[in-house]
Amino acid sequence: MEAGEGVSSATPTEEMNGAGNLMDFLDEPFPDVGTYEDFHTIDWLREKSRDTDRHRKITSKSKESMWELIKSLLDAWSGWVVMLLIGLLSGTLAGVIDLAVDWMTDLKEGVCLSAFWYSHEQCCWTSNETTFDDRDKCPQWQKWAELMTGNAEGAGAYVLNYFLYILWALLFSFLAVSLVRVFAPYACGSGIPEIKTILSGFIIRGYLGKWTLLIKTVTLVLVVSSGLSLGKEGPLVHVACCCANLFCSLFSKYSKNEGKRREVLSAAAAAGVSVAFGAPIGGVLFSLEEVSYYFPLKTLWRSFFAALVAAFTLRSINPFGNSRLVLFYVEYHTPWYMAELVPFILLGVFGGLWGTLFIRANIAWCRRRKTTQLGKYPVLEVIAVTGITAVLAYPNPYTRRSTSELISELFNDCGALESSQLCDYINNPNMSRPVDDIPDRPAGPGVYSALWQLALALVFKIVITIFTFGMKIPSGLFIPSMAVGAIAGRIVGIAVEQMAYHHHDWIIFKNWCRPGADCVTPGLYAMVGAAACLGGVTRMTVSLVVIMFELTGGLEYIVPLMAAAVTSKWVADAFGKESIYESHIQLNGYPYLNVRDEFTHRTLATDVMRPRRNDPPLAVLTQDTTTVEDVETLIKDTDYNGFPVVVSRESERLIGFVQRRDLTLAIKNARQKQDGVVSSSVVYFTEDAPQLPASNPQPLKLRRILNLSPFTVTDHTPMETVVDIFRKLGLRQCLVTRSGRLLGIITKKDVLRHMAQMMNQDPDSIMFN
Amino acid sequence: MEAGEGVSSATPTEEMNGAGNLMDFLDEPFPDVGTYEDFHTIDWLREKSRDTDRHRKITSKSKESMWELIKSLLDAWSGWVVMLLIGLLSGTLAGVIDLAVDWMTDLKEGVCLSAFWYSHEQCCWTSNETTFDDRDKCPQWQKWAELMTGNAEGAGAYVLNYFLYILWALLFSFLAVSLVRVFAPYACGSGIPEIKTILSGFIIRGYLGKWTLLIKTVTLVLVVSSGLSLGKEGPLVHVACCCANLFCSLFSKYSKNEGKRREVLSAAAAAGVSVAFGAPIGGVLFSLEEVSYYFPLKTLWRSFFAALVAAFTLRSINPFGNSRLVLFYVEYHTPWYMAELVPFILLGVFGGLWGTLFIRANIAWCRRRKTTQLGKYPVLEVIAVTGITAVLAYPNPYTRRSTSELISELFNDCGALESSQLCDYINNPNMSRPVDDIPDRPAGPGVYSALWQLALALVFKIVITIFTFGMKIPSGLFIPSMAVGAIAGRIVGIAVEQMAYHHHDWIIFKNWCRPGADCVTPGLYAMVGAAACLGGVTRMTVSLVVIMFELTGGLEYIVPLMAAAVTSKWVADAFGKESIYESHIQLNGYPYLNVRDEFTHRTLATDVMRPRRNDPPLAVLTQDTTTVEDVETLIKDTDYNGFPVVVSRESERLIGFVQRRDLTLAIKNARQKQDGVVSSSVVYFTEDAPQLPASNPQPLKLRRILNLSPFTVTDHTPMETVVDIFRKLGLRQCLVTRSGRLLGIITKKDVLRHMAQMMNQDPDSIMFN
Repeated sequence: MEAGEGVSSATPTEEMNGAGNLMDFLDEPFPDVGTYEDFHTIDWLREKSRDTDRHRKITSKSKESMWELIKSLLDAWSGWVVMLLIGLLSGTLAGVIDLAVDWMTDLKEGVCLSAFWYSHEQCCWTSNETTFDDRDKCPQWQKWAELMTGNAEGAGAYVLNYFLYILWALLFSFLAVSLVRVFAPYACGSGIPEIKTILSGFIIRGYLGKWTLLIKTVTLVLVVSSGLSLGKEGPLVHVACCCANLFCSLFSKYSKNEGKRREVLSAAAAAGVSVAFGAPIGGVLFSLEEVSYYFPLKTLWRSFFAALVAAFTLRSINPFGNSRLVLFYVEYHTPWYMAELVPFILLGVFGGLWGTLFIRANIAWCRRRKTTQLGKYPVLEVIAVTGITAVLAYPNPYTRRSTSELISELFNDCGALESSQLCDYINNPNMSRPVDDIPDRPAGPGVYSALWQLALALVFKIVITIFTFGMKIPSGLFIPSMAVGAIAGRIVGIAVEQMAYHHHDWIIFKNWCRPGADCVTPGLYAMVGAAACLGGVTRMTVSLVVIMFELTGGLEYIVPLMAAAVTSKWVADAFGKESIYESHIQLNGYPYLNVRDEFTHRTLATDVMRPRRNDPPLAVLTQDTTTVEDVETLIKDTDYNGFPVVVSRESERLIGFVQRRDLTLAIKNARQKQDGVVSSSVVYFTEDAPQLPASNPQPLKLRRILNLSPFTVTDHTPMETVVDIFRKLGLRQCLVTRSGRLLGIITKKDVLRHMAQMMNQDPDSIMFN
Repeated sequence: MEAGEGVSSATPTEEMNGAGNLMDFLDEPFPDVGTYEDFHTIDWLREKSRDTDRHRKITSKSKESMWELIKSLLDAWSGWVVMLLIGLLSGTLAGVIDLAVDWMTDLKEGVCLSAFWYSHEQCCWTSNETTFDDRDKCPQWQKWAELMTGNAEGAGAYVLNYFLYILWALLFSFLAVSLVRVFAPYACGSGIPEIKTILSGFIIRGYLGKWTLLIKTVTLVLVVSSGLSLGKEGPLVHVACCCANLFCSLFSKYSKNEGKRREVLSAAAAAGVSVAFGAPIGGVLFSLEEVSYYFPLKTLWRSFFAALVAAFTLRSINPFGNSRLVLFYVEYHTPWYMAELVPFILLGVFGGLWGTLFIRANIAWCRRRKTTQLGKYPVLEVIAVTGITAVLAYPNPYTRRSTSELISELFNDCGALESSQLCDYINNPNMSRPVDDIPDRPAGPGVYSALWQLALALVFKIVITIFTFGMKIPSGLFIPSMAVGAIAGRIVGIAVEQMAYHHHDWIIFKNWCRPGADCVTPGLYAMVGAAACLGGVTRMTVSLVVIMFELTGGLEYIVPLMAAAVTSKWVADAFGKESIYESHIQLNGYPYLNVRDEFTHRTLATDVMRPRRNDPPLAVLTQDTTTVEDVETLIKDTDYNGFPVVVSRESERLIGFVQRRDLTLAIKNARQKQDGVVSSSVVYFTEDAPQLPASNPQPLKLRRILNLSPFTVTDHTPMETVVDIFRKLGLRQCLVTRSGRLLGIITKKDVLRHMAQMMNQDPDSIMFN
C-alpha cells in the first residue's frame, strides 16, 4: 500500500467541509474569486455547484428568522419576476420599434400635414375625408414633391420624390452606422451567432450591455426605415437578451452566476422571437432548437411565460393597429390538394438552393471584408449599399415599400375587396358568389405586370441581401429570406393557378379544379416559399413550422409547410451542414461546440491532449513542495488557465486542479495580508501543513482554492465520448490519466481545434483564451 | 517513476485499435455480447459509442460498391421510415379504437336495426327520417327495452335498460381484465410510468411486445366502453410505443441498440398524444416535457414528423365524423376580461388541490392493494368497481354517457341551435341577434337541474376515479381528470355568468357586462378547469397549454389557461413535488433518476460508494495475475454487474472495467472453443501476455472485452455533481478514485438509494439488478 503519500485520511466531518470548500472561499474577503475574464469560457458544473451552495445557504438561513424566510421566498420568486420584467420591456421596445419604423419608412415618401408624427396609414385613418375604397389616399398625407412644389404628378415630381427617398435613406443609414461605430460596436449584425456562443458558455463582456441595448434599438429603427434589405427579427432577439442581462444585474442570483444568467438569456431569446412574429410557442421552440445550449425544463416554463408576457405587452401597444398579435395574419378559404405537394416540394428545393447560395456567397463576401481593405471603411460601405438599394428599389413598387408590407401582401389571398395589382383578375360577371369565396379566374394585365416586377424584385433581393448581411449595422435575416421565398412562391402559385384555370381538363386538375370553383391559393404558395427559404438559411424545422402555424392558426397547412421546410433542409444540408449562424460563428472563430455536429472520427483522448509528443512536460504543481516563487514563475511563464496539482512529480498521482485566476488572487492576497508569506514560503494543498525545518518561512495553505474533484478521463477514451462529455457537462477542461497517473490535459479549445482539424479547417482560427 | 507497471506503452496504431475494441469484439462469433439482461439498466455512453462504430463501418463500406452505398442510404433513411410507419399504425389503431368505443358504448343502451355495427349517431345520420332538430332520435335506433318488450317508455323499460346497461358494463370489464391477466399482464395501467422508466434506460422485456400491443388495444376498447371512469389517452401512448418497438425490430440499427431504440420510443410517445388529442405540437412537447429522458434535436424533428403523420392518418379515418382532428373542438365568440382571471385562478387552486388529493388517495389505495389481500383478487375488484360505477352512473345523464362526450358538451358554448339542458336559458323575445352571438340571459329551470346533476357527477367522478386508476386494466387519467375540472369549471362559469347578468350594475361587471351583451362564456371556464385539474395531476405546464391551444386554435385564451395551469402546479407542488406518474414509479420502485429533482444535500461520492466502512474490500480483477478459476469463483460468489480491473492489488491503479455478462460469455466461449484454456489459465487484460513459466497452461487474453475508458470521479466529488453526471451521461456505474487509486464504485442503484435515503424514503424499495 502506498498510503499516506500526502493525502491525509479525512474524518467524516472534514469530508463534509470538503464539499463546502467553494463556499468557504466565497466567504473570503478577496473578491472576484470564481468569476471569469473576458473572452473566457465558463465551467458549467462549477457554476451549478456554486448555485446549489448558495441555495443551501439560503434554505438553512430561512429557518432562522421571519425576515430570512421572506428573503428566501423573494429569491425563489426572482426568476419569475425577471421573466415578467423581460417580457414587459422587450414587448414595449418591440412596439416602439414597430411604431417608429412605420413612421420613418413613410417619412421617406411624404409627411402627414395634420400631425407630422403620424404614419401614412394613421394619417389617413384619422382623416374623415377618406372613403372606404381608397384608404391610402387622403389630402392630409402629402408626398414631398407635392408639399414642396405643389405638384403631385409628372416626371418632375417623380424625380424629386425619388431623390428625396434616396436622401432620407442615406441619412438614416449614415446615422445608424455612425452611432454603432462610436457608441456600441457590438450592436451590429443580427447578434444571433454571438448569443449562441454566449449561451454555450463564453464570456463577451459588453455584448449584452446597456449601451448595446440603447444603440441597437435606435439604429434598428434607422436601418429598417432606410429601406435596406434587412429585417428586425434577429436583432430583436439580441435586444431581448440585452434586456435580460439588464434585469439579471438586479438579482445577485443571476448576476453572480454565469450559468443561471444563461438560463435567463435563453428565455429572453424566446421572448425576442415571440415579439418579432407574435408567435410565443414558436419563440420557445426557436430558443430550444436554434439558440440554446443548456435548456432545463424549468427554463422551458419560464421561457414560455416570458414569451407570453412579451407577446401580450406588444398586443396592448397594438402597433399594427389591428389587434392582431402576429406580424402577417392570413386566413385562407380553400383547402390544399395532394397534387399541390409537387410545387410545394419544388419550393422547398428552391429554398434549399437559396440557403446554400446565400450562405456561401455571404460568407465569401464577409471573409473578403475581413481580409481586405474593404473592412476599413464600414461607413462608406453602408452608404454605398444604401445608395444602390435606394436607387434600384424606388422604381419597383414591390421593393419600394417596406419588406414586411411586401410579404404581407404576397401572403394574402385575393378577397373581393383587395385592390392590389396582384389581384387584378378578369371578373366573370355572370357569377355572383359570397365575398370570401372567389373562384379561380383568368389573370388580368395587372397580374402579368406584377409578375414581371416581382421577378425583378426577386433578383434584386437575392443579390442585395448577400451584400447587406454582415455590414456594421444591426441586420436581421428573417425578413429578407422570407421575402425571397414569398416572391418565388407567389410567382409559382400564380403560374399553377393559371395553368389549372386554363387547363382544367388536364388529368391532374380534373378532380379538384372544375371551372368556376376556387382551387389554388397563390398566397399559400408564398407562405410555403417563405418557410422554405427561411429554413434553407437558418435550418430551423420544428420552430419554423410552429411559427408559421401560429401565423395561420390552422393545422390545415402544416403538411405543405412541413414538406417544404424538410425538403429545404435536406437540400441545403446536402451542400453543407452549417446554418448561416453557425457559418458566421466559424468565420469569427468563436469557441462554439456545436450540439448538432456528430463527431465520428476514431481518435482517442491521448491524440488530443497536451503535452504532445516532444512538447515540454505538463506544468503541474505539487501538493506540498512548491514555493510561492515557483508558483509565481509558473504563472508568469505560462498562460494556462489552470494547473493540475499532483502528489509528487515522481508518482504523478492527481489530487486536484487549481485555476490560474484563483491562484493569482490568493497569492496576491496572502502577500498583502498574511504575515510571514514570502517568496520562499512553501505552498501546500494538503489538509495539514508539511513537516518543515523550523528555519523555513511560514507555509501558505491553499487547499480552499483547490478543486478536489477535477474531471478525468483515461487516455483510451474515444474522442467522441470526450466531445459528448464536454458538450453535456459543459466542461472547461478535463485531465487525462492512464492507470491513475496524470498524463495530460484537454481543454475546450483543444477539443474545438481537434474538431476543426478533423474537418480540414484551420484549427488556429478559433478565438479563445 | 512507476512506469512499466504492466500497462504496455501503446504505439499509435494500437491506440487506434483501442477505439475499435468494441467493434472487434462485436465481430466475434459469440453472440449477445453488449446486450442487457431483463430489469437491468443500460449504459447510454456505451450505446452511443456502439452506434458511432456501426455508423463508421457503414460509411467506410459505402465507398466500396454501389450496393453498399445504397445500403448506407437506406440505413440513413430508416429513421424516417420507422417514423412514417409508427405514425400510420398508431393513427390507424387510434381510429379503430375510437370507432369501436363509439359503437360499444352505444351498445350498452341499444342497437341499430338497419345495421347492428352502426353506433347511435351513425345509425341516425344514415336514416332519412331524422329531422335536423332531433338528430338523436330515429326509429332505426332502438333501446334494448323497446326492442325486447316493444315498450319504450315507463318504469319497466327504464329498469330493464338500467339492468342491461350494468350487464354489458360487467361483461366488457370482465372480458378486459381476464384478457389482461391471461395474455399480457403488462397491458394494465396507463403505461406512462413504465415508459418513463424505460426511456430513462431500464430494460423491461415484453413491456412493449406484440402481445401487449394487441391485448392493450382490445382491452382498451372494452374498458372505455364499459363506462369505467378512465380514459384512453395515456394507454394510447403505450400503444404507440408498442408500435414503435415492433417497427424497431425491422431495422438492426434500432433493434440492436437500446439507446437508438429509445429515441424512436420518445417520438412514438409524441405520436400517441398527437392521436389522443389531435394535437401534434402538444404531443411533441408532452414527450419532451413529461416522458423523455434523452431528447436530441434529431428526435425533435422526427417526433414532429411521426406526430403529424399519426394525426393525419387519424383524420383520414375520421372517427368523429366531423373532419376535425381534435378531440374537443371548440370555438368561442366572446373575449375574456381581466376580472375573470380571479375565477380562473380559483379554478387553478381547485385543480392543484384535486391533484394533491387524487395523488395521495390513489397512492394510498394502490399501496393497500399491493400489501393486503385485495391485490390477490384483481378480477373481482374490477367487477366490483364496474358494478358500482354502472349502478351510480346510469341515473345521472351526465355520468351515463361517455366521459369524452360529457367534456365536449361542457366545453361547448351555448349556440342558438344547442338543445342541451345546459343551454336552457330564458329567451328574451324582443332581441334578435345573429346565431353565433347569444347575449347573456337568465338561466332557465333546465340549467338549475343540470347544475345539481353536475354537482353530483363531480363528487361521483372524484371518488370513483381514485379507486379506478391502478386496477389491472388499461386505464388513462387524462379524461377523468379533465372531466372533474370541466364540471367544476362549468359550474363556476354558470355562477359567474348569472351573477354578472343579475348584478350587472356591480362595479366589477359594469364595464364589460351591459345587459343584452354577451360577456361570460361558461364553456371557457370548463376548459380552464379541465386544464387546471389535468395540470394538478400530471404537473404538465407548457405541453398542457399547447394541447389546449391546439384544441381551441386561438392565442386569445392562452392567458387564462396559462394562469390556471401555473396556479394549479404551484398549489399542487406545495403539497408534494411528484406527479401521479412519478408517484407510481416510486410506488413500484422503478429505478428512475428524476430529471426534475434537485439534489441539494452536501454529501460526497465517498459517502455513497461501496464498499462502505467495515464492508469486505471491493471485488477487483488484476490485469495479469487472476486465473480463470478465480474469475469463475468471483462471478459465482458475487452478483455485481461488473468488475474493475487494476494493475495489482497493492497499487490499486485502475486500468479498466469489465462487464459481468461479457466476462461470463467470454470465458464460456473460450472454454468451448479455445484449446488449452483450463481453470488454472491466467486471464490477462494487457496487450502482451505476461511472462509465465513454460509449465503454465495457455493464458487467456480478454483485453477485447475490457472497457479501457471507465468513468471515474474523485472521492471528494460532491454528490450533486455525481447525480448530474449520471443523469446527463446516462451512466450505469462510476468508479471512485483518490489520487489515482481505486477506492470504490457507485452504481445507479447506489445513487437512487442514496437519494431515497436523503428524502427519508425506504432505500430498499428500489427494484433493480
